[in-house]
Amino acid sequence: MQKDGEENPLSSNFGAKIKIQIFGQSHSELLGVVIDGLEANQEIDIHGINAFLQRRRGGLNAFSTKRAEADVPKIVSGIVDGKTCGAPLCAVFENADACSADYERLRFIPRPSHADYNAFVKYGGANDIRGGGHFSGRLTLPLCFAGAVCKQLLSRRHIHIGAHIRQIGGICDAPYNPVNLRVHDLSYAGFPVNDAAAGEEMIEAMTAIAKAGDSIGGIIECAVLGLPQGMGEPMFDGLENRISAAVFSIPAVKGIEFGAGFSAAGMRGSEHNDEYFIEDGRISCKTNNSGGIAGGISTGMPLIFRVVVKPTPSIFKEQNSVNIKTMEEVKLQISGRHDPCIVPRAVPCVEAAAAIAIIDLL
Amino acid sequence: MQKDGEENPLSSNFGAKIKIQIFGQSHSELLGVVIDGLEANQEIDIHGINAFLQRRRGGLNAFSTKRAEADVPKIVSGIVDGKTCGAPLCAVFENADACSADYERLRFIPRPSHADYNAFVKYGGANDIRGGGHFSGRLTLPLCFAGAVCKQLLSRRHIHIGAHIRQIGGICDAPYNPVNLRVHDLSYAGFPVNDAAAGEEMIEAMTAIAKAGDSIGGIIECAVLGLPQGMGEPMFDGLENRISAAVFSIPAVKGIEFGAGFSAAGMRGSEHNDEYFIEDGRISCKTNNSGGIAGGISTGMPLIFRVVVKPTPSIFKEQNSVNIKTMEEVKLQISGRHDPCIVPRAVPCVEAAAAIAIIDLL
Amino acid sequence: MQKDGEENPLSSNFGAKIKIQIFGQSHSELLGVVIDGLEANQEIDIHGINAFLQRRRGGLNAFSTKRAEADVPKIVSGIVDGKTCGAPLCAVFENADACSADYERLRFIPRPSHADYNAFVKYGGANDIRGGGHFSGRLTLPLCFAGAVCKQLLSRRHIHIGAHIRQIGGICDAPYNPVNLRVHDLSYAGFPVNDAAAGEEMIEAMTAIAKAGDSIGGIIECAVLGLPQGMGEPMFDGLENRISAAVFSIPAVKGIEFGAGFSAAGMRGSEHNDEYFIEDGRISCKTNNSGGIAGGISTGMPLIFRVVVKPTPSIFKEQNSVNIKTMEEVKLQISGRHDPCIVPRAVPCVEAAAAIAIIDLL
Amino acid sequence: MQKDGEENPLSSNFGAKIKIQIFGQSHSELLGVVIDGLEANQEIDIHGINAFLQRRRGGLNAFSTKRAEADVPKIVSGIVDGKTCGAPLCAVFENADACSADYERLRFIPRPSHADYNAFVKYGGANDIRGGGHFSGRLTLPLCFAGAVCKQLLSRRHIHIGAHIRQIGGICDAPYNPVNLRVHDLSYAGFPVNDAAAGEEMIEAMTAIAKAGDSIGGIIECAVLGLPQGMGEPMFDGLENRISAAVFSIPAVKGIEFGAGFSAAGMRGSEHNDEYFIEDGRISCKTNNSGGIAGGISTGMPLIFRVVVKPTPSIFKEQNSVNIKTMEEVKLQISGRHDPCIVPRAVPCVEAAAAIAIIDLL
Repeated sequence: MQKDGEENPLSSNFGAKIKIQIFGQSHSELLGVVIDGLEANQEIDIHGINAFLQRRRGGLNAFSTKRAEADVPKIVSGIVDGKTCGAPLCAVFENADACSADYERLRFIPRPSHADYNAFVKYGGANDIRGGGHFSGRLTLPLCFAGAVCKQLLSRRHIHIGAHIRQIGGICDAPYNPVNLRVHDLSYAGFPVNDAAAGEEMIEAMTAIAKAGDSIGGIIECAVLGLPQGMGEPMFDGLENRISAAVFSIPAVKGIEFGAGFSAAGMRGSEHNDEYFIEDGRISCKTNNSGGIAGGISTGMPLIFRVVVKPTPSIFKEQNSVNIKTMEEVKLQISGRHDPCIVPRAVPCVEAAAAIAIIDLL
Repeated sequence: MQKDGEENPLSSNFGAKIKIQIFGQSHSELLGVVIDGLEANQEIDIHGINAFLQRRRGGLNAFSTKRAEADVPKIVSGIVDGKTCGAPLCAVFENADACSADYERLRFIPRPSHADYNAFVKYGGANDIRGGGHFSGRLTLPLCFAGAVCKQLLSRRHIHIGAHIRQIGGICDAPYNPVNLRVHDLSYAGFPVNDAAAGEEMIEAMTAIAKAGDSIGGIIECAVLGLPQGMGEPMFDGLENRISAAVFSIPAVKGIEFGAGFSAAGMRGSEHNDEYFIEDGRISCKTNNSGGIAGGISTGMPLIFRVVVKPTPSIFKEQNSVNIKTMEEVKLQISGRHDPCIVPRAVPCVEAAAAIAIIDLL
Repeated sequence: MQKDGEENPLSSNFGAKIKIQIFGQSHSELLGVVIDGLEANQEIDIHGINAFLQRRRGGLNAFSTKRAEADVPKIVSGIVDGKTCGAPLCAVFENADACSADYERLRFIPRPSHADYNAFVKYGGANDIRGGGHFSGRLTLPLCFAGAVCKQLLSRRHIHIGAHIRQIGGICDAPYNPVNLRVHDLSYAGFPVNDAAAGEEMIEAMTAIAKAGDSIGGIIECAVLGLPQGMGEPMFDGLENRISAAVFSIPAVKGIEFGAGFSAAGMRGSEHNDEYFIEDGRISCKTNNSGGIAGGISTGMPLIFRVVVKPTPSIFKEQNSVNIKTMEEVKLQISGRHDPCIVPRAVPCVEAAAAIAIIDLL
Repeated sequence: MQKDGEENPLSSNFGAKIKIQIFGQSHSELLGVVIDGLEANQEIDIHGINAFLQRRRGGLNAFSTKRAEADVPKIVSGIVDGKTCGAPLCAVFENADACSADYERLRFIPRPSHADYNAFVKYGGANDIRGGGHFSGRLTLPLCFAGAVCKQLLSRRHIHIGAHIRQIGGICDAPYNPVNLRVHDLSYAGFPVNDAAAGEEMIEAMTAIAKAGDSIGGIIECAVLGLPQGMGEPMFDGLENRISAAVFSIPAVKGIEFGAGFSAAGMRGSEHNDEYFIEDGRISCKTNNSGGIAGGISTGMPLIFRVVVKPTPSIFKEQNSVNIKTMEEVKLQISGRHDPCIVPRAVPCVEAAAAIAIIDLL
């Protein structure tokens, strides 16, 4: 059953104009990211980066992992006197609170819907199983670092990115207004929802799920404002191609839709088309079913997309699995520390992935 | 309003191990594709390729464009005596039945939800507007050629790709069985649906839409069988990232979902997880909500994804637009030849994009 | 001995910001190039391109091949009304005067120092042997087309590229002045040498070599003027890395040196260093041993490099070879049409390669 | 004079199948490298890597820098239990003995033939000037780490790489035998020369140069044995293109030649061609002027190339420079710690660059 590890060309790097290279495993000594190709002489606001990273940090409430990491980046190259110096920017994080012992007994008992089993086959059993290794959600930490840097550079060009929880389980937040969306609509004081009541319901639902030892999925809606018209390339390097290529780096994302998205299947062209009008002397549309993208390139309207986040596969309920060594069916009871719902922590990750994709096309 | 054409790095090419470079415009002298990096000494079955290309060809029935092109490829390099010779394979197609005059009057009146306006801005007005230029659905012809070659090479490795119309307007076809799907389920004698009655309803609906001068969208479901377990790379080069990066090259695709997709938002982990069992001495799952991918890499189950195709924006109903030169509001009546529903012709395009993405990861 | 053709990832394409994809074989129906990523709205002077291509054209005199091709490009996409339209530019050439019969008898008798034998092994015997296939010097025709386009775009940014024959056999031309070199020094009315007398000697030498059925090598010196200071990237994407990666695409080039080049081995730092002075209110150097590059990036001085071109391996003298099928030693007498010295025709090829490398870094 | 820092796409990374990303500056907190795409389940011999790194380490004798760094890598990800685990391998080094104060006074007085002045312009003055920043020879430390890993993996496939000092100043070592070269010819007990007497002369010459406060250049010859016939791709990804693209990452390398190299300029085809014979039942050549490469792909003969290393520009003799702020001519007296001849330390760097280029084409 076990096959020899084979070459894995191209994996944890992204980008053409800038290059993002992520490294590390959930329990490796360090994890981090190298960003190559950043413009020199740009101020980097470390406090802003840390504030962004706190948004994805766990250990904070009933519905996120108990693993307590400081998640403070150490910048080891590429910044001098608070500014990018033109050399690759590298930031590293420590894995201080890793409990590797939790995982050893899982070596031959793959967790359902995790990458354990196929990674075992892919790497000939040599993959790092501790905490999910390189497949861990912890790898979104360096992703968010890179995204935070990109977001800062984009915001100086008046391009702003934000996201909210559109749905958790069956509970829906109010969507973004796809036409009249302003920069201040993109940031949230606390729980990232437009409708505070829906937010409270979501928190209640997550708390209940946590008690039940189960998990739940959701949908995140992300918007980009201020994109210059004409960004992106036709065919393979359109905004949709590049954003989706970046966003699927977030474990648990299983779908993406732009503008009207899947609801367009039931629409007629006469409903879906965004007609042009003159408003205040400028060309505008009254609808934005295109989600700000036509032909892969930006229309000048808000860019809006949604991603679905599957329920985290780490649940505390007993599950059926197999021992891949002895080929016996076994019952699996996962311990460890896991989020019953990763949607809230995935919100900044989606913004980060979007920022990386967009700066690379700029 | 008009800005200088700016550099457009990276656009109509795809791939790391093989390189697909597409060229041509809707009404250019030729259009075509170069495939670099194909294994040498592989037989290429031209008849098979032509049969595949006929599946996307227009002019065939009431619900597709009247533009009549032979769409027969001329292979100009890379094949000697019916086999790949190791040099880049180039195939070209003629644009014989292009009616460029149809488009000249649209130069300053962008068609709603087409790329006309943002392309005008992007390229400083220098873009080829005839037939949509490089943004035309006609560019899926070389895409399908490349996909047909890749499909042939994949099928020799026992990897098979097929797709069907999952939905047109509100009418749904029976979905693929995500667990027990066999190779012969992936090919269709005529209209690509699993449920013939649903297919007839779809054809009726399209005919009605065509009469109304309107258009309609739909959903295509694609499956890949025979993928070796462990294919794809974590993070940015997972199967989801690469397939979506390829599939969004098809104009009108606005969303993609893998496995349970967006419905996972409302599921619990205990419902969504694909538990492991032993069946006939092999490890298996009774569900496939993961769509054959976990952690970006193949699980060995059928890979299943769906894409939404928006209603084609070319409709014959009068629409509101503006003259971007005079900045006046105008009424736009599109003539030309257009499909009221491009979903049937997009089915082989989705297969082609999937084939290209997968061979590049192999 | 024969091994299965194996995958050949990455081959006939170049570039990060622009992508150059070359296709075709010496005797394929067409050969050509796709240039993706060119700025839109740029005038392309076809007459200028044709004039450049004539510089590499054969059949013109005693010391170049008798193969008579018109070598006139047909532009099939990417240019509308004489300007780049933002879509990939594709140009094709016909192979009209190809005598494939000359080559069939060489299938199993590799020509010494050609790629025949190792290509046979690499591609499992499936490679196109007619005229050297994809390894033919004829592939420098699309290279020169791409280079001619890039040279035009560069010259509008006041970056000028030229080259001359620095040496043929033992006969040397006067070198470029590495410090005071002006744009008009870079173009030549006829034979590209600075010292007309040396040029005549070279022509005599080539004529004698041609009579003897032998061939001879040489050195080409190339200069780039007007490069903005600070171009190129440290480490792997410096000017030296990128120019050499492009220039070695020309068959027969076997070495490259920048500035003082190999003579630096015997120099002291105090001799080699280019000291700074103030001249006419500007910082300048009295020497240019660096060849206009330090740390991989441009210094603002003329960029100067030299490449060595080996004697073409196609000679008419009888040579020793083997029949790789029967494993017998044989005598080989090459007929066909070949240049006794390809150095003059390689001059525009070197300029073209430099232009491609530089525009990609701009 | 100062221009805004501009985007620097692509820089300190290399590779298509594997990706090498180098980061760090001479005096940054850490420097290091990420290697992405290594085959999983491969043993990595850390002792072997450390032994290789010692070969490039300074502080060891009269003719190398006094900067004393332990140069011991800390592997922070990608290796579990001594084997590659499939995740990106990251190794970091400390910059413990960095004397940044030495450099502050050089901020506006560029050292001749260093990258100081053009980097200042490129990065708008934001570049890290301490120790040359990212342009420092210290960056060859992570390069050598990556090369050492690649060399180990190559040697398991029976591909061996070695290099020796071919020339320092006017003193020449015996060249490699280009036809009959064996693996044990590629390693050296001490000073890497074939002719011990030449080696002693070189050491004397370097000692004299050091006393004179000057520096001197040289030539390194590198050989690769065991390459399978048919490696490399035609045109832009030939062995010559890729090796030169890697080797020019080493600061001070200013030229490269393969096989007969520049001497081919004066040779006739009948002299230069490597004719085929049958020897011991195998096809062989009695000469190797091609340096083991024809048409960009390996011939099966030893791959041999030479690079020229310029005299290090850091000399202790007084030099002419300018103050780029005040625009006055000044005399520059460099202190700091520098090698009078970097050729010996560059030998493993050349091997490392070759190993990286070759493993990427394998």
